[in-house]
Amino acid sequence: MSQNGSHAITRRAPHVVIVGGGFGGVAAAQALKNAPVRVTLVDRTNYHLFQPLLYQVATGVLEPGTITTPIRSLFRSQRNVDVLMAEVTGVDKDRRLVEMTGRQPIPYDYLILATGVQGSYFGHDEWAPLAPSMKTLADAEFLRRRIIGALEQADQETDPQLREQFMTFVLVGAGPTGCELAGELAQHFHRVPAEYRHIDPRQARIILVEAGPRALATFSEELARGAVNKLRSLGVDVRLGKAVELVDEEGVVIAGERVRSRTVLWTAGVSASPAGRWLGVETDRAGRAVVGPDLSITDHPEIFVVGDTAHIQNNGKLLPGVAQVALQSGKHAAHTIRARVLRQPAPGAFSYFDKGNMATISMGYAIMEKDKLKMAGPLGKTGWAFIHVLYLGRAEGQLMLCMQWLFGAMFGKLSSRYIDTPAFESTVRSSAPVAGVRPAADQPAS
Amino acid sequence: MSQNGSHAITRRAPHVVIVGGGFGGVAAAQALKNAPVRVTLVDRTNYHLFQPLLYQVATGVLEPGTITTPIRSLFRSQRNVDVLMAEVTGVDKDRRLVEMTGRQPIPYDYLILATGVQGSYFGHDEWAPLAPSMKTLADAEFLRRRIIGALEQADQETDPQLREQFMTFVLVGAGPTGCELAGELAQHFHRVPAEYRHIDPRQARIILVEAGPRALATFSEELARGAVNKLRSLGVDVRLGKAVELVDEEGVVIAGERVRSRTVLWTAGVSASPAGRWLGVETDRAGRAVVGPDLSITDHPEIFVVGDTAHIQNNGKLLPGVAQVALQSGKHAAHTIRARVLRQPAPGAFSYFDKGNMATISMGYAIMEKDKLKMAGPLGKTGWAFIHVLYLGRAEGQLMLCMQWLFGAMFGKLSSRYIDTPAFESTVRSSAPVAGVRPAADQPAS
Repeated sequence: MSQNGSHAITRRAPHVVIVGGGFGGVAAAQALKNAPVRVTLVDRTNYHLFQPLLYQVATGVLEPGTITTPIRSLFRSQRNVDVLMAEVTGVDKDRRLVEMTGRQPIPYDYLILATGVQGSYFGHDEWAPLAPSMKTLADAEFLRRRIIGALEQADQETDPQLREQFMTFVLVGAGPTGCELAGELAQHFHRVPAEYRHIDPRQARIILVEAGPRALATFSEELARGAVNKLRSLGVDVRLGKAVELVDEEGVVIAGERVRSRTVLWTAGVSASPAGRWLGVETDRAGRAVVGPDLSITDHPEIFVVGDTAHIQNNGKLLPGVAQVALQSGKHAAHTIRARVLRQPAPGAFSYFDKGNMATISMGYAIMEKDKLKMAGPLGKTGWAFIHVLYLGRAEGQLMLCMQWLFGAMFGKLSSRYIDTPAFESTVRSSAPVAGVRPAADQPAS
Repeated sequence: MSQNGSHAITRRAPHVVIVGGGFGGVAAAQALKNAPVRVTLVDRTNYHLFQPLLYQVATGVLEPGTITTPIRSLFRSQRNVDVLMAEVTGVDKDRRLVEMTGRQPIPYDYLILATGVQGSYFGHDEWAPLAPSMKTLADAEFLRRRIIGALEQADQETDPQLREQFMTFVLVGAGPTGCELAGELAQHFHRVPAEYRHIDPRQARIILVEAGPRALATFSEELARGAVNKLRSLGVDVRLGKAVELVDEEGVVIAGERVRSRTVLWTAGVSASPAGRWLGVETDRAGRAVVGPDLSITDHPEIFVVGDTAHIQNNGKLLPGVAQVALQSGKHAAHTIRARVLRQPAPGAFSYFDKGNMATISMGYAIMEKDKLKMAGPLGKTGWAFIHVLYLGRAEGQLMLCMQWLFGAMFGKLSSRYIDTPAFESTVRSSAPVAGVRPAADQPAS
């Protein structure tokens, strides 16, 4: 067991293991601050990621350090939390053990799984290396290399057809991430034209494809329409009700039409992390573990699943995979555990308080919605920015965030555009071909 | 040829190819601003790196974006410069071509090579994967993962002997980089103790080994002694006149004594980039190309080598590999080219103006030296910080730098401590064993 040494006082206290240092896991650990328990928070990285701004790392507006906080530093003064950097591989429910790569399993008395989601390709996992998704920091840095690398390659390319392929960006999925990334890309290309001698980045094509009948399905129709209009005014080619039928080394096929592109980004679907599989419980189509009203799983009141890796029903509706659900459900699981340890009445069923929904489109345009209240445009953007700065936490992180936004807005200066790869070979992770040596064969759409 | 399209006016102007976007290459390109030439600046990355602060990326004080600037953005308004991201592999002096990976060679009328240096292991290249050096941004980020990963591993380790190995850091070479990194490490370990539950980072051992009789050989004895005393007061174990005889998976052997360490960092020697080899000219022991008084090579007045990849004699002394030499020599080569193109008298022999020498040891201690003027302590540190902020350039970069220093100093907050590797396997680049499965065999020193 890893708890050797320094915890004499609490050594016999119940041990709560939390897997995942995202919004849900961190909120749970913080909510156990004054509970008489030992907490071990396990994550495969050493940092908490402020996911809502991840797309701005992909375009070089923000530095990775601005939206990451070492998990340890969050619990500097909360002495009942031990942070462990390790990769969890499974759960032994009967022996109450969390299994990890290269380490002894850790025993728990209570377990909270807050392991999040990953990109889903709807049964086409072979598209993953061709159309990367954006869930982790490494993903976002990879996208940055792809996007900035594509402009570098376009500037060098003398064949007009190949150049056009490097200047074509396809985003699959018009949810909040797709719309935000499309808007951010359009702005990026307008910030940097003077730097290139052989291309005009403003002429880059950005195609945003959505299989469903409309963009931003979690927002009201009115706001979604406004957002699409705004994207179109920025030059984004928004195609609704069109499915991407194929992703290959040539680009994509959209509703029968071949679109050649060197940069296809996947912002469409997500599937839950394997937590449901570890537990052997019922999961929904997206792999989310079905939980009871108090967020514990069937027959195991000591195991909780929170955030977007859980299928949580609230007033008969499935809760969306947003930060607020993770925060609130993580906190709820922690409160339930604390009550049980203290032999107090448990808080009972989880009830979600919807603080509203928002997405940003451009420098001066965001949409916000809370029940009947709807906001769009500069006012929405102000609210969006304010709330993001507020929730980022850490005074110095907030200041850095504001400054990086300010520099981007005022001077078009972007914080982090460094890329190391010389010839773009290594910007493609696996099976995709080396840029520049690809044959220009014309394959029929499947 | 890559110059298609937009340069109608200057298409017949002489073509100057500059290889390397460091201090020398950028200074040369900038000095050609008003010359009637076309310039192509080639670098394998897309950024200019402010090398003097690189060691602060290795300890997480600074973000990579703070000390990198996209090369393109430096030449946004200098229209005679074309920036090309490519890997140069050789020079054809007779046909006047620069050869590159995966591209057609580029013809030149004038060539400036400013390709810098790399770590040198004095004939022991097999030590490179075991004891990484720090010349590139990727190196510094790799060191960050090593250093922060070692503390993570130490905190998890239950075997006291293994834990001690993770808590032992060996730096080979007490030049400016070694001393600066040792001081920075000592400070880092004093900033973060409250975050760990099973170790006290203040008890980490930092051993700085120097084979020569004294540290900081480019400084006066008095200043070097002061710096060593300061390092010792910070707890650094400075060992002068002791050679590292072996680096292996167990650690190092220092003058016959086996020291077990999981983190050995190489700050000892450098060797020049292969520019001398490309040109087939005489090189010195460190591989630097020997150049004439005007920095051109024998029989090829159109080829210049500048910065620390050149062996430059000044008043009978070899110039050191510092930023000022690169800046001034790059500028001199550019002025010579401009004079020749304009058929004006050439500036003649390069003469170095020594602006002084400096190194920082800790938050409040740096040494500076200019001829008879010597400074150490807080005043030296103030001067050091001022000069580094000044030379970093870019208003927003300067502000970010000041803020990151301020947060580090005031709150012990470090900007970029994110590491992604779960079990430290991938923190070792090549042949070194996986942490935790290494046999504890006791090998005799060779």
